[in-house]
Amino acid sequence: MIVIGERINGMFKRVGQAIASRDEATIIEVAQAQIEKGANILDLNVGPAADDAVGTMQWLATTVRKITDLPLSIDSPKPDAIRAGLEIAGNNSLINSTTGEQEKLAALMPLAAEYGCPIIGLTIDENGVPRDAPGRTEVALKIVASAMEHGVPPENVWIDPVILPIAYTQNHQPEVLKAIAECKLLSDPPPKTVLGLSNVSQGTRYRSLVNRTYLVMAIAYGLDAAIMDPLDDELMDAMITAELLMNKTVYCDDFLKAYRT
Amino acid sequence: MIVIGERINGMFKRVGQAIASRDEATIIEVAQAQIEKGANILDLNVGPAADDAVGTMQWLATTVRKITDLPLSIDSPKPDAIRAGLEIAGNNSLINSTTGEQEKLAALMPLAAEYGCPIIGLTIDENGVPRDAPGRTEVALKIVASAMEHGVPPENVWIDPVILPIAYTQNHQPEVLKAIAECKLLSDPPPKTVLGLSNVSQGTRYRSLVNRTYLVMAIAYGLDAAIMDPLDDELMDAMITAELLMNKTVYCDDFLKAYRT
Repeated sequence: MIVIGERINGMFKRVGQAIASRDEATIIEVAQAQIEKGANILDLNVGPAADDAVGTMQWLATTVRKITDLPLSIDSPKPDAIRAGLEIAGNNSLINSTTGEQEKLAALMPLAAEYGCPIIGLTIDENGVPRDAPGRTEVALKIVASAMEHGVPPENVWIDPVILPIAYTQNHQPEVLKAIAECKLLSDPPPKTVLGLSNVSQGTRYRSLVNRTYLVMAIAYGLDAAIMDPLDDELMDAMITAELLMNKTVYCDDFLKAYRT
Repeated sequence: MIVIGERINGMFKRVGQAIASRDEATIIEVAQAQIEKGANILDLNVGPAADDAVGTMQWLATTVRKITDLPLSIDSPKPDAIRAGLEIAGNNSLINSTTGEQEKLAALMPLAAEYGCPIIGLTIDENGVPRDAPGRTEVALKIVASAMEHGVPPENVWIDPVILPIAYTQNHQPEVLKAIAECKLLSDPPPKTVLGLSNVSQGTRYRSLVNRTYLVMAIAYGLDAAIMDPLDDELMDAMITAELLMNKTVYCDDFLKAYRT
């Protein structure tokens, strides 16, 4: 499983303040902590408050690049902020994200082709988030087809079937699991699958429990990656154990420690 | 999910001693504790040491029947001990277990028909435990067919696709998940599915973590019941949360407490 660390996001108060005051030390501290806990990619999101999205993303990517060569996930609703982030982050980074909307695909697929980088595709189209697994897979197919048209190989498309909060919508969660499995049948090689995990627990009282329970289920259906909190040790333990039980890693008595070293 | 409490088993030292000395108070305490923690059925297993399996099972069932009308799971390798247990436990109990072996089916299916009770069928045949999901499903079909021949309705067959310890066999665990899903296609109505959960963590350092992670995966594949430890609060929390995320229960902010009251 690929762990995309979610913590460098302006919506977290401390990070938002650090971004607003261009406080490099705090950003570097959050980056370092996630790397130590096992993040494979770091998501960078300047947050909703930034009025200069391009300049802020440039500063954020430059700051994080001072301490790590890990791929960065350049996370913005604005294509020009994504381009600015990719310029600094380099070709081993990730576009987060397009949807299945024509306007988004037209803006972002050329960028994925130009930088040769993976792109996350949310299964949302002009009608919103589909209600069931086939609806999500249909949008995923649209995204994969658009990628191919633009010369982006399907394995560089990371489909995110959009998990909604259990506190508000209860019938989507099993459908997302099915969509994860169905997406693997869309092309050969298939697209990767990814989830913005923490969304499932928005507004619940037991966020970590809900997050880790859903992550384990999604891994059982073949999930490849998640945008998640690597600082949540119980979440990481659950992920490591699920990977072991899916025969993705080799058993040893201290498999938790073995994964982390 | 149906929780079959596993704690009244002679292989646990304290229970084994209580059985050997006919100590009713301890057995009743263990029964009561499991019921309070949410067991829907109590498994009764006299353990390997009992030299009078029939008399011991009679005593055990009589003792537990003093405090509860819950179904009991009469768990013995010996058909005469199972019959003795059923006599006392009554028709709302469960035979644990047959396999797909002809000799076992011939001995136990008539008992399931006579008592009109559910019967657990382990996917083991004369060749042992199959290596993959189709092998397990094939044995499951043999068990369902035998049930039908004996007048036992398929929904009274609870297929256990036999989870092996992750510490010793690593490739079976994903196959068991697939078998859980495949068993649902065997008949209409389909058989139920059940797992002897704790076996997956035998010999591991993190037993509770391994148990609860695998249970969540199995629930995501449609598992109906598990023989498990209801005294493990984290295991129960994981189960409750998994059921919620599979849309089997209704969300409320304190869904953990709601399940338990």
